[in-house]
Amino acid sequence: MQAIILFGHGARDIRWREPFDRMATLWREQHPTTPMALAFLELMQPSLAEAIAGLVDAGATSVRIIPVFFGQGGHLRNDFPVLLADCQAKFPDVQISAAPAVGEDPHILQAIIDFGARELT
Amino acid sequence: MQAIILFGHGARDIRWREPFDRMATLWREQHPTTPMALAFLELMQPSLAEAIAGLVDAGATSVRIIPVFFGQGGHLRNDFPVLLADCQAKFPDVQISAAPAVGEDPHILQAIIDFGARELT
Repeated sequence: MQAIILFGHGARDIRWREPFDRMATLWREQHPTTPMALAFLELMQPSLAEAIAGLVDAGATSVRIIPVFFGQGGHLRNDFPVLLADCQAKFPDVQISAAPAVGEDPHILQAIIDFGARELT
Repeated sequence: MQAIILFGHGARDIRWREPFDRMATLWREQHPTTPMALAFLELMQPSLAEAIAGLVDAGATSVRIIPVFFGQGGHLRNDFPVLLADCQAKFPDVQISAAPAVGEDPHILQAIIDFGARELT
């Protein structure tokens, strides 16, 4: 069974995660047969490994990670591959893979442009 | 004349800004009569004040700032209002205002959900 993780940076202020909680709700409403979990790089729980463990407990054999980051800087280019390799070592029987950062998706960039245009009117 | 700023966090790795440069191109293609500038909170140039100065030089009398952040944590709740007040003091004749963070927009959250769903297939 395939599962998905929305993976964000994390922050000290708990309210930072509100859009992530809204995305979790949207995912579960729209894709109820594909288990999803949130995970955070730092400062918030669960970690990526904890999120994968939860999905594996729920029956996942394959986990696709969506990095909810705009840019691909040090976190995604340096920290994330190490973290991914650690997780793969912890869960050798699970197929773990990662999508590009959401900032690479032209539809998401267009949605930001459209938001900006609406904010001017 | 109204102008817009796409305001991001910034990062050490110059490649982090690539989605911002793509958004700048999209904006200029789609909204050529509304001047836009990128600006960054830290680690990248220009600063918010520098970006506003450039837009004012280009004739802007009103600047709407779009915070390209998912979550509203310490940066947006604490640092940003101070920065905004500093900028308003520097440019008293310019109407400066800020939109909510892009992570507050349901269309953008939906675009992320749709990206995740496409990444599973």
